[in-house]
Amino acid sequence: METRTSSMIGRHPAVAVSGEARERLAICADSCLVCMQTCTTCADACLAEENVKGLVDCVRLNLDCADACRATASVLMRAIGGDARVARALLRACFDLCAACADMCAGHADEYAHCLICAEACRDCQHACKDLLDALL
Amino acid sequence: METRTSSMIGRHPAVAVSGEARERLAICADSCLVCMQTCTTCADACLAEENVKGLVDCVRLNLDCADACRATASVLMRAIGGDARVARALLRACFDLCAACADMCAGHADEYAHCLICAEACRDCQHACKDLLDALL
Amino acid sequence: METRTSSMIGRHPAVAVSGEARERLAICADSCLVCMQTCTTCADACLAEENVKGLVDCVRLNLDCADACRATASVLMRAIGGDARVARALLRACFDLCAACADMCAGHADEYAHCLICAEACRDCQHACKDLLDALL
Amino acid sequence: METRTSSMIGRHPAVAVSGEARERLAICADSCLVCMQTCTTCADACLAEENVKGLVDCVRLNLDCADACRATASVLMRAIGGDARVARALLRACFDLCAACADMCAGHADEYAHCLICAEACRDCQHACKDLLDALL
Repeated sequence: METRTSSMIGRHPAVAVSGEARERLAICADSCLVCMQTCTTCADACLAEENVKGLVDCVRLNLDCADACRATASVLMRAIGGDARVARALLRACFDLCAACADMCAGHADEYAHCLICAEACRDCQHACKDLLDALL
Repeated sequence: METRTSSMIGRHPAVAVSGEARERLAICADSCLVCMQTCTTCADACLAEENVKGLVDCVRLNLDCADACRATASVLMRAIGGDARVARALLRACFDLCAACADMCAGHADEYAHCLICAEACRDCQHACKDLLDALL
Repeated sequence: METRTSSMIGRHPAVAVSGEARERLAICADSCLVCMQTCTTCADACLAEENVKGLVDCVRLNLDCADACRATASVLMRAIGGDARVARALLRACFDLCAACADMCAGHADEYAHCLICAEACRDCQHACKDLLDALL
Repeated sequence: METRTSSMIGRHPAVAVSGEARERLAICADSCLVCMQTCTTCADACLAEENVKGLVDCVRLNLDCADACRATASVLMRAIGGDARVARALLRACFDLCAACADMCAGHADEYAHCLICAEACRDCQHACKDLLDALL
């Protein structure tokens, strides 16, 4: 399925990133957006739980991961026309934060359905960052 | 199709926003994300065009619209558990910026395929903001 | 004192916004940055309080206000070279969110020193948005 | 001079980060905010220059650096109460982007006064990230 992200990338006049890397970039950018939104919602859902006191570190990590994904998604869009190397440092940071947040949420996945979905979104994004990093080497 | 946004909203323990408003909120949040990403990419594609000099106001408005959509998407997720009224001021601002950016990009749609897609994403988001505002009244 | 914001504005080649409005724009942009950071920190400090359960709405509003301030600060910088009218919708939203967050934090100011400082930063930013809106009329 | 950032950090109930690291964290967070705003303005000033065509890579890097600084500033505030290790990946990315943007802007500093100031803000932020990384080791 062509998302609007890949549709836009296909109409971008620059061709610095092409082929496999361009496909992975589109997937990674979309994964970052989904992860950013899922983490933002998971933070708010944690705040609404009876046991919020036990979830404050999850709220923090959710917000951190959302911020990293947000920055990475935007920087990736500018890697098409610009210098893809500058995106790599952020991709590594995004990979780290998604991995940490996936682990944290997976630890609560039995009790909180929102943490289960959030862990999946973080894991997807972590892998998408890795796949793109490999393609940009 | 259930997106991860609506899936997360369905697992959020709070029920302050329900029924029609809850569905529209999910659609609006997803529209904001798509519009934010499309505008970010359109700005970069404009920078890569031969005629960048004639497109600087489009770049600016794209970046403004992306920032408004980004803030609105996050605030909407917290409107589920919190006070939906605080989201309304941002929804109105997002509506205004999406309308302005849709008009601007539509004016270049014949020449630039990325502006055509961006105009559609902005128009979708503008309408989604309006639909949600009507439901939150 | 010349901050880096006013210093940058003074070196911006465009002169669409001038005189009193330009000064107020610099003050408002700096107020947005301070408020964004103060609200982000107040949210985290609330999460660290023993009584986090009683502060979840404050955390939410802090995060909402931070997102609005962040978007407004960036849009203001582009209002110097672009169309200042598009900044007005966001300025109104930022005014509303700063007012709501100032009220919320002021209600906890006796108990939490971070809420006292945050209420001041929100009030400052609320007034700076109003002053700039008046100058852009 | 006590900024509102250090003032807020001083009133944060958590003490996971203390002493020298806490001071450097406050300086780094403020440097990120200044750099984010300076880069956002430099991008807009470049768009307003007669020679915008020769400055598109500077616009891109300015926007990338602003996004990295924005994420880092927020994550740093949550490192006070949370796990400072998660901030390190973003600090390294922020260091890299500030270094790249400082180099780019320094190359235009003779011609564009806004690039001169922006290069200084990026260099300051690059060093502040390094100082904090050293303290968090």
